[in-house]
Amino acid sequence: MPQPKHLTGLKLRTPSRAKLDADMQKYFRLCEEKLGFVPNVLGAYSFDQAKLRAFIAMYNDLMLADSGLSKLEREMLAVVVSSANRCYYCLTAHGAAVRQLSGDPELGEMLVMNWRTVRLPRRQRALLEFAHKLTVAPAEVGETDRDALRQAGWSERDIWDAASVVGFFNFTNRVATGVDMMPNTEYHGQAR
Amino acid sequence: MPQPKHLTGLKLRTPSRAKLDADMQKYFRLCEEKLGFVPNVLGAYSFDQAKLRAFIAMYNDLMLADSGLSKLEREMLAVVVSSANRCYYCLTAHGAAVRQLSGDPELGEMLVMNWRTVRLPRRQRALLEFAHKLTVAPAEVGETDRDALRQAGWSERDIWDAASVVGFFNFTNRVATGVDMMPNTEYHGQAR
Amino acid sequence: MPQPKHLTGLKLRTPSRAKLDADMQKYFRLCEEKLGFVPNVLGAYSFDQAKLRAFIAMYNDLMLADSGLSKLEREMLAVVVSSANRCYYCLTAHGAAVRQLSGDPELGEMLVMNWRTVRLPRRQRALLEFAHKLTVAPAEVGETDRDALRQAGWSERDIWDAASVVGFFNFTNRVATGVDMMPNTEYHGQAR
Amino acid sequence: MPQPKHLTGLKLRTPSRAKLDADMQKYFRLCEEKLGFVPNVLGAYSFDQAKLRAFIAMYNDLMLADSGLSKLEREMLAVVVSSANRCYYCLTAHGAAVRQLSGDPELGEMLVMNWRTVRLPRRQRALLEFAHKLTVAPAEVGETDRDALRQAGWSERDIWDAASVVGFFNFTNRVATGVDMMPNTEYHGQAR
Amino acid sequence: MPQPKHLTGLKLRTPSRAKLDADMQKYFRLCEEKLGFVPNVLGAYSFDQAKLRAFIAMYNDLMLADSGLSKLEREMLAVVVSSANRCYYCLTAHGAAVRQLSGDPELGEMLVMNWRTVRLPRRQRALLEFAHKLTVAPAEVGETDRDALRQAGWSERDIWDAASVVGFFNFTNRVATGVDMMPNTEYHGQAR
Amino acid sequence: MPQPKHLTGLKLRTPSRAKLDADMQKYFRLCEEKLGFVPNVLGAYSFDQAKLRAFIAMYNDLMLADSGLSKLEREMLAVVVSSANRCYYCLTAHGAAVRQLSGDPELGEMLVMNWRTVRLPRRQRALLEFAHKLTVAPAEVGETDRDALRQAGWSERDIWDAASVVGFFNFTNRVATGVDMMPNTEYHGQAR
Repeated sequence: MPQPKHLTGLKLRTPSRAKLDADMQKYFRLCEEKLGFVPNVLGAYSFDQAKLRAFIAMYNDLMLADSGLSKLEREMLAVVVSSANRCYYCLTAHGAAVRQLSGDPELGEMLVMNWRTVRLPRRQRALLEFAHKLTVAPAEVGETDRDALRQAGWSERDIWDAASVVGFFNFTNRVATGVDMMPNTEYHGQAR
Repeated sequence: MPQPKHLTGLKLRTPSRAKLDADMQKYFRLCEEKLGFVPNVLGAYSFDQAKLRAFIAMYNDLMLADSGLSKLEREMLAVVVSSANRCYYCLTAHGAAVRQLSGDPELGEMLVMNWRTVRLPRRQRALLEFAHKLTVAPAEVGETDRDALRQAGWSERDIWDAASVVGFFNFTNRVATGVDMMPNTEYHGQAR
Repeated sequence: MPQPKHLTGLKLRTPSRAKLDADMQKYFRLCEEKLGFVPNVLGAYSFDQAKLRAFIAMYNDLMLADSGLSKLEREMLAVVVSSANRCYYCLTAHGAAVRQLSGDPELGEMLVMNWRTVRLPRRQRALLEFAHKLTVAPAEVGETDRDALRQAGWSERDIWDAASVVGFFNFTNRVATGVDMMPNTEYHGQAR
Repeated sequence: MPQPKHLTGLKLRTPSRAKLDADMQKYFRLCEEKLGFVPNVLGAYSFDQAKLRAFIAMYNDLMLADSGLSKLEREMLAVVVSSANRCYYCLTAHGAAVRQLSGDPELGEMLVMNWRTVRLPRRQRALLEFAHKLTVAPAEVGETDRDALRQAGWSERDIWDAASVVGFFNFTNRVATGVDMMPNTEYHGQAR
Repeated sequence: MPQPKHLTGLKLRTPSRAKLDADMQKYFRLCEEKLGFVPNVLGAYSFDQAKLRAFIAMYNDLMLADSGLSKLEREMLAVVVSSANRCYYCLTAHGAAVRQLSGDPELGEMLVMNWRTVRLPRRQRALLEFAHKLTVAPAEVGETDRDALRQAGWSERDIWDAASVVGFFNFTNRVATGVDMMPNTEYHGQAR
Repeated sequence: MPQPKHLTGLKLRTPSRAKLDADMQKYFRLCEEKLGFVPNVLGAYSFDQAKLRAFIAMYNDLMLADSGLSKLEREMLAVVVSSANRCYYCLTAHGAAVRQLSGDPELGEMLVMNWRTVRLPRRQRALLEFAHKLTVAPAEVGETDRDALRQAGWSERDIWDAASVVGFFNFTNRVATGVDMMPNTEYHGQAR
């Protein structure tokens, strides 16, 4: 049962890296230095550099820019959303990120398998509950849910950021599953 | 029962338009010329221009750039996704867009209420079926679903675009519902 | 994409109006005077006047007879139920009725798209919550739900009427969808 | 654990039978002759004779008038719908009716517990599949489902009747559950 | 519509009883003395006596050994679980057991049809709520649910026993449905 | 965020190992030799040796006895069932078993996250589809599902074994989640 190693299940021609614009070549080298490889999502998007740039810009703003949510907390949201949607690509990549940023392999596994089993401070638990509900029952989210975040200590701006990160992984989950995107195999052994 | 007129339910300070950077001021004026008003989503995002720019860049790439999916077809996807998620903002704004682009008010209503009632050529019906399933059951989407699109005449690239547009409105639906974003009232009477 | 204009998707012979009994002819003329047209549901039912009469009798008792629920409130229930069931016919007809009776087009749209977005007095919100739950999870409705209505100010008789109206549109939604009944196109532009 | 014997959970004053109009007194006596008792649903409705009459008229038209569906088939639909909605009143009353009309106690039990376990001719199985889907997922019913009935031998008129009976028990299930209506205890031991 | 009388829908050769080991022959005779027949589940399992013995051992430990849950309470759990899963075999066999142990035929029917209709002391209601949730949404069960049992008077050990009985019928329901096991017809008329 | 290390969330006194009967002491030593530790499920069950023995007997019969399903296939069923139910204990323990028996860490991860992403021979895919459906929608399983297994090459006896293994993990998932059982931490790093 050898498993697939393709970027995606679509027959889209992606250019050799040497054909990318200079800024994108530089960005890919940066990924290799930092992560050891270029994430397949970027390789897949490189068939159209306008889309690639729009994706990177939004990703970096949501996951790396200043926010009341720490980087780990944003990665935890990524995994909770991806677990509800059962997205193999995002669970693999962001599960590894949680293990690395937290130094706690069990935390990553618990979030992948069932986030409710994790013992968390009230502030973070409220965040994960919001993420789960906004993912599986967006039509039912309302002021009560925002108030629960406020009471757990999150600011108005934090709620915006939380809704945006949750929304974003509901986007990437559907792109990845919709085009059968496969994660880099390097993720699996990381930070176990 | 006067209904809310706020941009969002969050207490976020948004700058007066005169305080925005020149390119964003220009973009807002362009919206007013083309639509008669600045969509509330842009007003809401203006509290942070980096986020505003990332959102506009992705929106314009997905909805306006060249694609095998027509602009109307992409708006139809927006409505089918938003109907499944029952997003009041997106249904209002993109329902109006479908009515205008198609010149067919009933089409817009049917997509808002139940897309299955619409009579469509097989090619478009396959697109809406894909959009619905990728929205409500992403974990179950697979090669069979992509093959259904292929057999209905869509290319590999079209499948990427379809998955991306479907993903994107699963993002905006959750941001809009998550922060209680209200649509401009002008949409309601348009193209009836 | 010209949309269907048939009464229903069934090949049932309906008599010319001149062949109907005198009381039914009179009732149809009354509809034309009041609404400007005969609702398609009555045209469809006219293939069997016993069924037509039973339907009209029950409809008029539930929607027009004295009740602690105002006519607008009963129309609001009709839309909330029909939205949960995504019935194109009933959403079109009763969405128009809500717009007309309330003089508030946005209220009609919100109820069609997602009733939870509407700002309502507690009394009416409780009514819509009961309607939604009794529609989507009837097996789970119990004394707690009736008590919520009582605490919001509704009487024992009002609860009977609410359950009956909710039940009735769960009936008409299934008849309309089951036989592919199409609403009169006149509804779409009304009270926008 | 003595179980409730009330007509409904609502405190509604119902008149003594002697206070009912003559035609209704006669109808109740007819019930007693035929069934041995007056079904509680009629007792409950008697607080308002206009509602009682509208209910009886519709019930008798749907369940007793001429139709391509036999009386047993209509009772089978009643049980399949009521099982999906888990309506205690209707399962008790119509489960007994199926046992009596069919002379097959196991058939009644199977329909109450899980209709899919019953071995049926294709014609009847198609009918139950339609009933189940129209009950639990009305938004998804369409021409394919009607065609399945046609191919199983049902006429256009039969489809109308099936949708109507299915719709009607989706009505009564919600009235009965919504007001906590209790079935006559006599049903339990019948035709075992 | 003669209904099936087979042990299961699988073509598995089961030995004549005379070929079973002495202890199993004795156990079957014991069943006949106590119940009047050998339950079909045992007949079905007899194709492999190792499996038969493991099943009997676990069944007897869970349902008959000492526990803070009475035998009736355990049978009530069996019916609530089997109702959620709509298992015809288990509902038939354990519905009869509830009728017999409680001397209350209506209680058995209510649990089969909709356990929420039963009037119960708080202690038992909490037990049934736990059983239902652990059956239909195991991923969502947590400390809050265990605390609800504790507050209703159940001990730590009782919670173990409740979870085990609920788990066990989630096992038998799937074996019975998975292999199309049919209950002995004798159950239907018992204790009506 | 130190995660819990308890056997279960219940305050149940478990005996020191020296107090167990000789055969159970021997079985625990065997586990240590083979796995390096005693699985927490056995430690948890040791509060009552009758239950412990019944569990071990059934477990060993289902997972280790002769069967047309290989040990790896049975472990794959365990993970597919536990993923649907999101059981942290069983996913951890049996995910490790799949990684070890298959020598394919990605296979284990895919089954935990979304079994549909795995490329499998038709015979095994049919098995996993049966397991998933029998877990999430047991009421809908019927002859069509058994025929799909037969056509994929499975025997009558294999179907029994598949239904039993699927059923068994629907049991253990609910016991583990119901009592908050935590897996041994050793599993996490195994066979990565």
